[in-house]
Amino acid sequence: GGNVTDGQSKSASCAACHGATGKAVNSIYPNLAGQNADYLALSLHAYKKGERSGGQAGIMQAFSSSLSDQDISDLAAYYASLTPLK
Amino acid sequence: GGNVTDGQSKSASCAACHGATGKAVNSIYPNLAGQNADYLALSLHAYKKGERSGGQAGIMQAFSSSLSDQDISDLAAYYASLTPLK
Repeated sequence: GGNVTDGQSKSASCAACHGATGKAVNSIYPNLAGQNADYLALSLHAYKKGERSGGQAGIMQAFSSSLSDQDISDLAAYYASLTPLK
Repeated sequence: GGNVTDGQSKSASCAACHGATGKAVNSIYPNLAGQNADYLALSLHAYKKGERSGGQAGIMQAFSSSLSDQDISDLAAYYASLTPLK
């Protein structure tokens, strides 16, 4: 399973677009705070595998390419733990 | 722009997985309540264009294939208008 504290420590690159608290800095990006951890992990794996294209998918594939399975689980646990903000 | 009321009336198919209030019924699906409308619309267009594969993407492509640009805007406005629940 994912570790929230480890996920937070690995989230610096994510925060540039998705916000330090999981509230996206631009509306073309998704908010991540409070999202389901399972979905977040599936999405990161999909980007890593190149299953998403168009839009910002290239950027997400580049970022996710260096993530291990544990990194992905930790990041998913971290963002899922945050309180969603509208 | 999208119309929240029209979006709600078009959301019956979405609710089966994403919940009547945008809280997903299973953690492998994303919560949609309070998500950014711009991101929601971009995602639906990506599914419709076949830019996402793997996982549940086939189901989403099938559902989105019949949506017009206005339908997508309306659905995005509706889910963005809902209060996110963790």
